[in-house]
Amino acid sequence: MSRFWSPIVHTLSPYVAGEQPQISGLVKLNTNESPYGPSPHATAAIAAANGDALRLYPEPTGIHLRKAVAATYWLDAGEVFVGNGSDEVLAHVFQGLLNHELPLLYPDITYSFYPTYCRLYGIKSVLVPLDEGFEIRLEDYRQPCGAIIIANPNAPTGIAKPLDWIEALVAEHPDQVVVIDEAYVDFGAETAIPLVKKYPNLLVVHTLSKSRGLAGLRVGFAVGQRHLIDALERVKDSFNSYPLDRLAQAGAVAAWQDKEWFERHRDMIIATRERLTVALQGLGFEVLPSAANFVFARHPGHPGGELAAALRAKAILVRHFNKPRISDFLRISIGTDAETDKLLTALGEILG
Amino acid sequence: MSRFWSPIVHTLSPYVAGEQPQISGLVKLNTNESPYGPSPHATAAIAAANGDALRLYPEPTGIHLRKAVAATYWLDAGEVFVGNGSDEVLAHVFQGLLNHELPLLYPDITYSFYPTYCRLYGIKSVLVPLDEGFEIRLEDYRQPCGAIIIANPNAPTGIAKPLDWIEALVAEHPDQVVVIDEAYVDFGAETAIPLVKKYPNLLVVHTLSKSRGLAGLRVGFAVGQRHLIDALERVKDSFNSYPLDRLAQAGAVAAWQDKEWFERHRDMIIATRERLTVALQGLGFEVLPSAANFVFARHPGHPGGELAAALRAKAILVRHFNKPRISDFLRISIGTDAETDKLLTALGEILG
Repeated sequence: MSRFWSPIVHTLSPYVAGEQPQISGLVKLNTNESPYGPSPHATAAIAAANGDALRLYPEPTGIHLRKAVAATYWLDAGEVFVGNGSDEVLAHVFQGLLNHELPLLYPDITYSFYPTYCRLYGIKSVLVPLDEGFEIRLEDYRQPCGAIIIANPNAPTGIAKPLDWIEALVAEHPDQVVVIDEAYVDFGAETAIPLVKKYPNLLVVHTLSKSRGLAGLRVGFAVGQRHLIDALERVKDSFNSYPLDRLAQAGAVAAWQDKEWFERHRDMIIATRERLTVALQGLGFEVLPSAANFVFARHPGHPGGELAAALRAKAILVRHFNKPRISDFLRISIGTDAETDKLLTALGEILG
Repeated sequence: MSRFWSPIVHTLSPYVAGEQPQISGLVKLNTNESPYGPSPHATAAIAAANGDALRLYPEPTGIHLRKAVAATYWLDAGEVFVGNGSDEVLAHVFQGLLNHELPLLYPDITYSFYPTYCRLYGIKSVLVPLDEGFEIRLEDYRQPCGAIIIANPNAPTGIAKPLDWIEALVAEHPDQVVVIDEAYVDFGAETAIPLVKKYPNLLVVHTLSKSRGLAGLRVGFAVGQRHLIDALERVKDSFNSYPLDRLAQAGAVAAWQDKEWFERHRDMIIATRERLTVALQGLGFEVLPSAANFVFARHPGHPGGELAAALRAKAILVRHFNKPRISDFLRISIGTDAETDKLLTALGEILG
């Protein structure tokens, strides 16, 4: 606390990311990074951009990445906004599109950065409880609101909603922006991007951190009709003219265009997830149905915090949230098959 | 305009950066990039970081860069804050430290991003006119205020204040944060960083874009006592957990530590600036005394806009600000000696 702080700073309670210990030899299954990657085309493009040209500012709007993303979905580059990770994109979305007289609605259990953004920008919000099975219910969102944000698949549950459910949500709120945060969509859900042409109130947010194996490069994007993207550009150009550096732009375009790499590694992660799910069930875990690159699981005999600490003692990191309703759970990122085997062996010893 | 926008978006008037045409063969003297660089140690460090590890999130606090900067000034890493270019650092500074009941003071002619940040965060401000010689006067800041921000050297004038003047400003306002934006300090002014230990209200902001030749990598930092840095960290952790990607962190540390590269190229830029200044004076220009990597100059017979357009027709870009008091001026970045010769030849032809 300091008398020099702007008053808002006293009210903040910053987001706490999963720990990033700089220790080698750890089995790191706590922040949903890809165990593979990135595409060799991405590292080649970065290598080509690494040189004298770094003295020059990057292209300010990320136009090549916007064009690459737009081409995938038969959209215009003006319908794509890019940023320094989907966290920066989401920050601009909260400030530019989700702050209204009526409250923002989002699930009580979801990406825990959402309440942090609300505090940073003074956004009124109402947390809508998931049902007993940790599902989002359409009828719970039939209440006065200024905007809605949903993660699909949701985090940390991993549970996905089908596209017709998403479309119903968007169609039921024609006067509110509905944001679908699809950070994990590639691992088993269906993207809502094709609905963007039809619904002027729909914005879809993606990241290259997960399914493109580029968490270390910090690239995310949003897709929506031009009037929504325009709001994000106005906020961005009031914040930082050049959010994506030259290397990130080059690597992201190449990673995005390497469809073969993407599909192969996505399929490997899904296969490992299915094997892990069956094995955890064999150890007595309840595992929520995951469409993401992680599973959310609890054991009837062992609290989540106890299991996370026991795994940590064996140099295996998983994520535990000490929060109401989910403190029994572990969120376990999908690693390589070898990492998964180490995890299962360790859990077998702990549950012993 | 859209009914889906947060109300704040309607009030924004985004910063307009110098144009970044992606055309080769241009003599680009419009955005104060370095004509040299970056350090080969920086590109080597980036090459070493470019690979499989990009699948992992970066170290979230930029600790290695903070340690490197802190070591230079005999400070603690906790007294350094790093961000995605000094524009992002400044954005967090405006939100976290400059928003008070009393207005923020800054010069009427200075970095034109400052009023943009004020609108983005609803910060009250008073613009304090430079004097007739485009100098900042200490006595003009003796008025009730919540905080002060000064660029030293100022932009786009290039005029620097000596360190004892800066110290007097900081000492006269013990109850207000005083931010010194030192983006251009390395080219002829003295940094206020050594005063940080003495003044709890002083924050100094730097960039690696100019004197380190890394505009394309997007790295900046702020130095101040722990309670000021703490405010910036709270804002940052409410905005984006990982603002600096792995490649930017690696390259920035190596660039920062290559003192020999830094001093040699800084000296080359200063030598070219002095030669350009004399040559411009020979062509009849009035040139403000510059301590930066650009000069601010006007010709008594030719308006700035006319000269900028004539240079553009000859594939030479300089910056012209169509604003009160400075519309007669050109801001010309210091290029290589060859670029400077092309500029002088073109001006000679235009002035005829």
